[in-house]
Amino acid sequence: MAHHTADATLTVLGPDGLPLADHEVTVEQTGHRFGFGNIGFDLIALANAETDAAPESPFGGAAPAQGDHLAELWLDLFNTATLPFYWAGFEPEPGRPDTQRLLRAARWFADRGCAVKGHPLVWHTLAPDWLPELSTDEVEAAVRARIRREVTDFRGVVDVWDAINEVVIMPVFVNEEHRNGITRLCWERGRIATIRLAFEEARAANPSATLLLNDFNLSSAYECLVEGVLEAGIQVDALGLQSHMHQGYWGEERTLETLERFARFGLPIHLTESTLLSGQLMPPEIVDLNDYQIPSWPSTPDGEARQAEEIVRHYRTLLSHPSVEAITYWGLSDDGSWLGAPVGLVRSDGTTKPSYDALRALVKGEWWLPETTLRTDAAGRVRVRGFLGDYRLRARGAEAGFALTAAGEVTTEVTLPAS
Amino acid sequence: MAHHTADATLTVLGPDGLPLADHEVTVEQTGHRFGFGNIGFDLIALANAETDAAPESPFGGAAPAQGDHLAELWLDLFNTATLPFYWAGFEPEPGRPDTQRLLRAARWFADRGCAVKGHPLVWHTLAPDWLPELSTDEVEAAVRARIRREVTDFRGVVDVWDAINEVVIMPVFVNEEHRNGITRLCWERGRIATIRLAFEEARAANPSATLLLNDFNLSSAYECLVEGVLEAGIQVDALGLQSHMHQGYWGEERTLETLERFARFGLPIHLTESTLLSGQLMPPEIVDLNDYQIPSWPSTPDGEARQAEEIVRHYRTLLSHPSVEAITYWGLSDDGSWLGAPVGLVRSDGTTKPSYDALRALVKGEWWLPETTLRTDAAGRVRVRGFLGDYRLRARGAEAGFALTAAGEVTTEVTLPAS
Repeated sequence: MAHHTADATLTVLGPDGLPLADHEVTVEQTGHRFGFGNIGFDLIALANAETDAAPESPFGGAAPAQGDHLAELWLDLFNTATLPFYWAGFEPEPGRPDTQRLLRAARWFADRGCAVKGHPLVWHTLAPDWLPELSTDEVEAAVRARIRREVTDFRGVVDVWDAINEVVIMPVFVNEEHRNGITRLCWERGRIATIRLAFEEARAANPSATLLLNDFNLSSAYECLVEGVLEAGIQVDALGLQSHMHQGYWGEERTLETLERFARFGLPIHLTESTLLSGQLMPPEIVDLNDYQIPSWPSTPDGEARQAEEIVRHYRTLLSHPSVEAITYWGLSDDGSWLGAPVGLVRSDGTTKPSYDALRALVKGEWWLPETTLRTDAAGRVRVRGFLGDYRLRARGAEAGFALTAAGEVTTEVTLPAS
Repeated sequence: MAHHTADATLTVLGPDGLPLADHEVTVEQTGHRFGFGNIGFDLIALANAETDAAPESPFGGAAPAQGDHLAELWLDLFNTATLPFYWAGFEPEPGRPDTQRLLRAARWFADRGCAVKGHPLVWHTLAPDWLPELSTDEVEAAVRARIRREVTDFRGVVDVWDAINEVVIMPVFVNEEHRNGITRLCWERGRIATIRLAFEEARAANPSATLLLNDFNLSSAYECLVEGVLEAGIQVDALGLQSHMHQGYWGEERTLETLERFARFGLPIHLTESTLLSGQLMPPEIVDLNDYQIPSWPSTPDGEARQAEEIVRHYRTLLSHPSVEAITYWGLSDDGSWLGAPVGLVRSDGTTKPSYDALRALVKGEWWLPETTLRTDAAGRVRVRGFLGDYRLRARGAEAGFALTAAGEVTTEVTLPAS
């Protein structure tokens, strides 16, 4: 974990600017620079003070009654929230987007110190029902306008976006139930042209946004696509790799092999959609996970033990690779989870699974510096070794924040205010 | 087949330049514009007057004793020969390429009116044993030099090349037995950079050559690669699609769906490597066809009947698509065939299978204008309807050639020499 850890020599200065020599200070971590993410779907109702059930979504969301409890669990473990901008649900009628509700949810997270990510601006699945009637030129115009609108409206609150989702399959995807104009646009214009328009529009609306290409297809096809996109001069800020593991944990070898294949493009990698089941696995012959729907999919004691072990292995493996900058787990509660699968870290009844505690033991334990008492030397210095992120120092009844932003040996200063 | 057929109004002129009115003439086709190809591996020994067995090659070659007989069958059905430039066999010792032997083979075909294609200039499989010791820069220099040399040495005889083969898998291919520098080059530089160098060198050495990208992977990965290559501004003259059907005939639907996905890039399509078995099929679970090797793989009566039916369906389907400009069948005789599979149109004992006769009934039957007697009108005109290609007209004891080069209604003239 050397690439995540700073060995800092911290000089503590008093309000007078002089080193605070031979003094007791306490240092504690307050935040991670690494993106430990989860979807925030479950908390949209809470942020909007809604008491009714959330509007129906194929991607779930727990009952509002659990909101406060889930919020507490969420905020104790994660620092990055993914919010759903599925176009079909966000703008079921042209010109009536669900902006205010999502904006309140985004601000709720931002107010609590979280980064907020929007998912996704362009996707063939869950495109609105009114799109197929448009000509391809009109589809393009509608897609561009939708990107401009959302990225502009949420600028400053949502500054990370999956600019476009699952392009490998986009032009050749066949699903009569959700037949739409995005597939047609991508077939006629090409994958790279469609990616270009998504990135162009989003970049123009928020030049400082982090824009991702995101895909579940991690085969050579995605490698070829990424290479073509980069050759075409499109600025991609990070590569999104999904890792829904409904059919079983990949294991370290496959995970590292996958990371190597995508890391060689020199871009940061975000694991955008990670899941591990605490129940029966989906059979291996299922190709589209959406095709497997069963009436009841319980979380089991054996499954929960396995999930806890695998989530630790998965996060350790991902953090061991220097290209990985963020991991978003896809779900907190089993209640209302995608496909009804027991992917949550919390059972439907609100109790935590072993996986929650195991992940917390990493994120807020092994990879976290708790409040620690140190003594400055004659030059006012202490040595702080910790994960990159935000820290708080207390001394003489005053406190000041500082950040560790670079791995390895670093020197930094912190000045205490007058108490 | 409208896109392959001309409805020509042909004006026949005498040596004096005046229309040959109310005269009997005969017209017959002498060649196809469409590329009906096969590998020419079996005939290299014949062209070189060798009587020993051909040097060992994993891609086969029949015994020299059958040369004359196979040559006759080959030339009666095909007009485009693919010759093997597998680097490992072509230049087993650095600086000692097998140029003269291949050049004699290429000229043998060219002298008999055939186009000759070289396969392939760059491929990770069958790279020479001496390549792995080189640094990546040296590998690049060696690859560039090899391309320049072969394309220059064969210019005017071999003017069609698979510039690079199977790039989708190239950087991630793992095969310890043939570990080589090409995989490393492609991993470090990228697929598109490797394709660019292959096309650049080949183009520089022979600006009028037809250069192909060729792959067996016909999934979205190849689509993504093609799109990236075109976005990168690399001039690809035709897309090569392999279609080794050792695991069974694709059928019309899959074939047309595949053609549609690649035709939308607007490039001519060559089916570069087509095979259909006249015996037991390879089990569907085999991923790399090379992994399936059995001691005996006989051609069977049932298999031969099936192969004959399927080859007709396959060629009809391919010719029905306006983007397809050439089909190369991969093997004439079962003797020495790739993997020992009964892919040939001729049995190991030299007798023709039903597939040979069925294909010939298309190429030299249904799609061919045999000698036909016509009578010119008062303006010296006859109507000729036939497949695009070369024709011969005879009248008054003299003969002249003409070509039908464009489909649909066309007008042309032919002037008879003095007899």
